[in-house]
Amino acid sequence: MVNSAAPVTAEPLAPAAVFDWLDQAADLRAAAGLTRTLRSRPAEDPVLDLAGNDYLGLVRHPAVTRAAADAALRWGGGATGSRLVTGTTALHTELERELADFCGAEAALVFSSGYAANLAALTALTDPDTLIVSDAYNHASLIDGCRLSRSQVHRAPHDDPAAVAEVLAARTQPRALVVSDSVFSVDGNAARVGELSAAARAHGAALLIDDAHGLGVLGPGGSGAVAAAGLAGAPDTVATVTLSKSLGSQGGAVVGPRRVIRHLTETARTFIFDTGLAPAAAGAALAALRLLRAEPERAERAREVARLLSAQLTAAGLRASTPDAAVVSVRAPGPEAAVAWAADCRTAGLAVGCFRPPSVPDGISRLRLTARGDLTDAQIAHAVDVIRRTAPLG
Amino acid sequence: MVNSAAPVTAEPLAPAAVFDWLDQAADLRAAAGLTRTLRSRPAEDPVLDLAGNDYLGLVRHPAVTRAAADAALRWGGGATGSRLVTGTTALHTELERELADFCGAEAALVFSSGYAANLAALTALTDPDTLIVSDAYNHASLIDGCRLSRSQVHRAPHDDPAAVAEVLAARTQPRALVVSDSVFSVDGNAARVGELSAAARAHGAALLIDDAHGLGVLGPGGSGAVAAAGLAGAPDTVATVTLSKSLGSQGGAVVGPRRVIRHLTETARTFIFDTGLAPAAAGAALAALRLLRAEPERAERAREVARLLSAQLTAAGLRASTPDAAVVSVRAPGPEAAVAWAADCRTAGLAVGCFRPPSVPDGISRLRLTARGDLTDAQIAHAVDVIRRTAPLG
Ligand SMILES: Cc1ncc(COP(=O)(O)O)c(C=O)c1O
Ligand SMILES: Cc1ncc(COP(=O)(O)O)c(C=O)c1O
Repeated sequence: MVNSAAPVTAEPLAPAAVFDWLDQAADLRAAAGLTRTLRSRPAEDPVLDLAGNDYLGLVRHPAVTRAAADAALRWGGGATGSRLVTGTTALHTELERELADFCGAEAALVFSSGYAANLAALTALTDPDTLIVSDAYNHASLIDGCRLSRSQVHRAPHDDPAAVAEVLAARTQPRALVVSDSVFSVDGNAARVGELSAAARAHGAALLIDDAHGLGVLGPGGSGAVAAAGLAGAPDTVATVTLSKSLGSQGGAVVGPRRVIRHLTETARTFIFDTGLAPAAAGAALAALRLLRAEPERAERAREVARLLSAQLTAAGLRASTPDAAVVSVRAPGPEAAVAWAADCRTAGLAVGCFRPPSVPDGISRLRLTARGDLTDAQIAHAVDVIRRTAPLG
Repeated sequence: MVNSAAPVTAEPLAPAAVFDWLDQAADLRAAAGLTRTLRSRPAEDPVLDLAGNDYLGLVRHPAVTRAAADAALRWGGGATGSRLVTGTTALHTELERELADFCGAEAALVFSSGYAANLAALTALTDPDTLIVSDAYNHASLIDGCRLSRSQVHRAPHDDPAAVAEVLAARTQPRALVVSDSVFSVDGNAARVGELSAAARAHGAALLIDDAHGLGVLGPGGSGAVAAAGLAGAPDTVATVTLSKSLGSQGGAVVGPRRVIRHLTETARTFIFDTGLAPAAAGAALAALRLLRAEPERAERAREVARLLSAQLTAAGLRASTPDAAVVSVRAPGPEAAVAWAADCRTAGLAVGCFRPPSVPDGISRLRLTARGDLTDAQIAHAVDVIRRTAPLG
């Protein structure tokens, strides 16, 4: 990339050529085998879906879809404005109250996405006097939040609470925030939240846990990784969650101490300058949350399905991860093999995720399987059979 | 803010004190009169709403809410995954096709919010070899997109195409992107999109227009500010739109040349790492779009309501803006007066927006009125009467 020092005075690019460089970038991606294309799915899809993040199988539960429909009919197609102007309905307030209660926290604040919730937490809870210590494998939205913050960011080695403690001890900033995914979405391994909290506390730092893949799966009745670590209601701990995975909807939330929620409400840009979550999405998430509270065994079943999948894949000679939550990954020999493997699974009626560089922090290509809590034992056995039959050699 | 040079070795903060600084910040806001609180509205609200962004009055149109409900019942409460994995339904594809067609562009890509669409466009269409020239009054999401980009950003004076041309001429970067709101949301004044395009073209730059407040209001049949400027389908022009204002739903989209959409699909982080828009929101937006296409006079009526509001407010002796789209602002003597004025309007059954520092780029406090296209002449006269009766002296 050349950045010439003198003003660009030559003939300007013609309008039709202004975006030529995007085609060159596309060619480079194609040459590297990194082309991505959208696949549009039909409403009635015969494929068995182990690729989405519908951990509890609630996305099409009649109580969830009915609640979404009722909310749209009652409240309208959208929230009409930002949350501080017209975009807060009684439904948003109800969802926030029940989410906070479920997680054992004082308060919660709902956003239009989990991505927006993470941007809000990282920008509003930090300042130039804060050091952010961020796990090297954290989700893109946390990384973008770090970049939008006005803080210095230290990228800590993955899953290493001792290294986090060392960085905190050596810092020069009066404040610090430790931030980590609770469950890392590619491999499904869990962060050691309790040890991260101990490291943070030893050095007067706050802890932010992105529980996107933990809510609904980990902790008592699926109440999440923070509760699982005994930190529900802790005054120095904040969680972000998504409504788009276990809760079968769209949106996100920050869950934590009341003073944190107040601060976000009054200062977070992705809260103040964004339209409120659509009523249908708030309604769907609230219905899913209530189903989970009424049937807490759904969370346990998701974890059980993950253990069964992992054990049966391992017994079949495959390199499956040992699941900490409801994600199981299976290693592939390389990126092309992973893509072909996933395609063969699809041909056989099974949708699985396929992760390869640059979307995998460790460079290892793999299939990613969602251990949906609503899978039957027969479906699990079938999925394992398909994956085994289509596995690449070596 | 002190940033001590030595490691922080003193006694660490107790967990309960880690967020004390947030309370101090809240006290400072309170002392400055800048406290913000959420107001939860009921489903059946007797208040006449001129505060939301429902420009065409479609958010509760039966065809829109019915489409949202049907989409939820048919497709589920959420999209289940990111767009490249499982989150693209046939409904998303249909919406993208019709949006592109409506705007006269080659292609469109739907995001979970307009905020996310802006972050995507600014980060994916720029690089360290790009100069971004951004209007000083641009929306927060554009500003955050600039900050997330790896580009140098020049903040150009508000509404000054000549200044933009000068900056472009003097640049050292081979590429440049000019970015502006089409309609500035606080005052409702429009950017001179044609002149910005001419400036960009004279210097080989691309143009990005955030048409959040133009779609559905400006251009032929409400097809937006880019079409209004004769730039529909231009190879060097990209628009971002929201589904959350004129289209009565939630979500956003980037609309432009096919190569741009391809590039965003494959590289934009807020597309790749975010769950797809909920089916109900896609369904609602698609239904609203179809209503607008069938009844293009809805756009003209919104502009007419704005003219009527402005003229009647001015005739009543108030300092109303001359509207370029469907927003009218009325100046207040100061921030406290604006807050009291809006509160008095609400007591009289009229919801109006209240903008004051730091949310107004020019420091002027005002009421903000949405000229909804479904308002009757009687409602307009009533609104003007309430605003006049409650107006502060001076
Ligand atoms: C760990 C993690 N955090 C945050 C998000 C963003 O949540 P959402 O998709 O609801 O915006 C995701 C996934 O999309 C995620 O995997
Ligand atoms: C000019 C402008 N751009 C972008 C947005 C963000 O759109 P959304 O609320 O759909 O995220 C808004 C308002 O919210 C806006 O006013």
